[in-house]
Amino acid sequence: MAPFFSFTLEATDPETGARAGSFTTPHGDILTPSFMPVGTQATVKSLSPEELTDLGAQIILSNTYHLFLRPGADTIARLGGLHRFMRWDHPILTDSGGFQVFSLAHLRTLDEDGVTFRSHIDGSERRLTPERAVAVQEQLGSDVMMCFDECVEYPATRERARVSMERTHRWAERCRNAQTRPDQALFGIIQGGTYEDLRQESARAITALDFPGYAIGGVSVGETKQECWRITGAVTPLLPIDRPRYLMGVGSPEDLVEGVARGVDLFDCVLPTRIARNGSLFTDAGRVTVTRATLREQDAPIDPTCDCYTCRHYSAAYLHHLFKAEELLGYRLASIHNLRYMARLSARMRAAIVDGRYGDWRREFLSGYRVADEAKRQEQRVKRDAAWAATRPALDESAGARRVPQAASPLMEEAS
Amino acid sequence: MAPFFSFTLEATDPETGARAGSFTTPHGDILTPSFMPVGTQATVKSLSPEELTDLGAQIILSNTYHLFLRPGADTIARLGGLHRFMRWDHPILTDSGGFQVFSLAHLRTLDEDGVTFRSHIDGSERRLTPERAVAVQEQLGSDVMMCFDECVEYPATRERARVSMERTHRWAERCRNAQTRPDQALFGIIQGGTYEDLRQESARAITALDFPGYAIGGVSVGETKQECWRITGAVTPLLPIDRPRYLMGVGSPEDLVEGVARGVDLFDCVLPTRIARNGSLFTDAGRVTVTRATLREQDAPIDPTCDCYTCRHYSAAYLHHLFKAEELLGYRLASIHNLRYMARLSARMRAAIVDGRYGDWRREFLSGYRVADEAKRQEQRVKRDAAWAATRPALDESAGARRVPQAASPLMEEAS
Repeated sequence: MAPFFSFTLEATDPETGARAGSFTTPHGDILTPSFMPVGTQATVKSLSPEELTDLGAQIILSNTYHLFLRPGADTIARLGGLHRFMRWDHPILTDSGGFQVFSLAHLRTLDEDGVTFRSHIDGSERRLTPERAVAVQEQLGSDVMMCFDECVEYPATRERARVSMERTHRWAERCRNAQTRPDQALFGIIQGGTYEDLRQESARAITALDFPGYAIGGVSVGETKQECWRITGAVTPLLPIDRPRYLMGVGSPEDLVEGVARGVDLFDCVLPTRIARNGSLFTDAGRVTVTRATLREQDAPIDPTCDCYTCRHYSAAYLHHLFKAEELLGYRLASIHNLRYMARLSARMRAAIVDGRYGDWRREFLSGYRVADEAKRQEQRVKRDAAWAATRPALDESAGARRVPQAASPLMEEAS
Repeated sequence: MAPFFSFTLEATDPETGARAGSFTTPHGDILTPSFMPVGTQATVKSLSPEELTDLGAQIILSNTYHLFLRPGADTIARLGGLHRFMRWDHPILTDSGGFQVFSLAHLRTLDEDGVTFRSHIDGSERRLTPERAVAVQEQLGSDVMMCFDECVEYPATRERARVSMERTHRWAERCRNAQTRPDQALFGIIQGGTYEDLRQESARAITALDFPGYAIGGVSVGETKQECWRITGAVTPLLPIDRPRYLMGVGSPEDLVEGVARGVDLFDCVLPTRIARNGSLFTDAGRVTVTRATLREQDAPIDPTCDCYTCRHYSAAYLHHLFKAEELLGYRLASIHNLRYMARLSARMRAAIVDGRYGDWRREFLSGYRVADEAKRQEQRVKRDAAWAATRPALDESAGARRVPQAASPLMEEAS
């Protein structure tokens, strides 16, 4: 592990293998398990750094692909790096851009050396290679960088998954060799699709390269939850216990509980903030839709047991009104609540692990938490993909008509 | 004046007649001149009450028409009134809904008793009368209520303006008679179109009813700035010096400076927050467009002389990026800046008045401030009206296609 980093495993749950640890970085320690809020474009949507600190965020994730395209890594470097640019003095993890290049970029052409693609913003031709992805992340100056990997689509044939995995291994070695800054930790990424034996082969190949942390990539791409947990459960036993483990793009509250039970330490997902902006708020009983009629005059907060800024200060009725009126403050208050929920959930899991009672805690939590059903999840995914497609005016001149209309009025509608 | 209210005139500028005063209300004192940020739907768009307090807002305005339709005055009353509902413990002024009914509502029919109109939200038929407008404002519990007036369109014939003005006078008396709560001040509104003699007649009629404060209504409706100042200058000399004076719907920084020079104490306008969300920020040199290319890598804040949260903490480059990326935090940071600018401007005018040098201060300010030109103002008005029209899906099924697309992506676009 690089001299600026260390991971201390503080407790392991005897029943499940769930881990409580502490991950030291140049910008502070992260107590694990920990959920990382997503700040795609150098901002966690609608929130200030102070609000993120107050709600207990220890580390945030930002997206290399997006920052590479806009404002550009050169610009951020000239302005003193990503921490200073966005005024976040705590740890930052940047993904490598691999996932976005393969899932969001267009007209991409892959070769052994790297990927050429068109920017979703202006259609310009851009290129990322393992070396370039590391160089960009060094310009951003994140605490944790990720290897540039090929994220195979779901479903993929065994042969596709193998070819992609082997390229990911070669690229991981090139990323490791490209790193020049000692104050950033580079994590390796394990691929292999939904094939357990490939995943295990990938875990062995990537850990042989001796990274300071390991991620399970290529999940949360359309596979079922069962497949995700089967893969995760197959991989984590092969990872060294003295390095942090990160399950990429996961997840919901129940996903964190399951991931932790399989020995995962770090998580990230847009779900808590994205569904917050759609008026869906986490409670221990499951998600609450803030616009439902029963909350119209509820003077109590959305979750009376919650200690977040929103629940301490505002009635459910006010939040209901803000969402009905499509007011920007609503998106912000809901985001604070959901991220605070994830931070508290992480802390509660950690306490249960330290106490050696994570198995019981997990059963109790899951028995009370009503999970949003799989069909609804898939439906949300489709809607989300359509919404993403609608944000590409430069590539699709008809996009205007397909844009999600919901957000138009909060910006404009003020009394005259 | 009602027992809960008092207005103390502290200084009058010898050259211009500009006034420095202090207006006491049940929720606190307001040092005048003062600009009131607009919180149309029980929220100043994107901002928390703490942010409003920190930036120096002493009083905010909220809109009776909007709250009457959603969430409804009964709901807000059951939840403890508007202050508690939106968690703003400082003074609130509510307009009467008259302006919105006449300019924004649809299929309205006017009779001597009141106005019947269709909700812009769901098309339902609603009715406001002078008595009902006061009752609704008493349910909201604002510190300052406004009389229900008829706001005549611009341009209007002399006869139209007279008929409308006379009805406004009769309605003012009915509003005064309808008031039951002593802890709210009801302000009279002067109308009369662009006709100086009608305006003066209206000032005499309304002041004869002895209200604790007086407003000049029916301005900022399309007339030229010259007409607005001509009307204002004709009215203020007729108003009692021991009551606050409020110029409704005005305005920009230069408008405040001119209004104060004509003896006005209170102002409100959506302009500072609306143009903030379009990336237009106030400085003493005029408006700065945050997306302009020269700010792309400016490490200094938008306005190095500004003490707002935004300018103290963020580079112009970061703000530039947030607007280019259509990020919600950008709208918030820009709104904070513009409202802080208006609060500081108010305080600077007050200090100059107290020092007896307002005339000089005004000349100096106006010589440095580049005013957005009239043609651009008119163009913005047209765009704004179109944007408003586009927010009426219930009344206009084709509205979706015409909606302003800008705001769609900040809500949805997050890395997957």
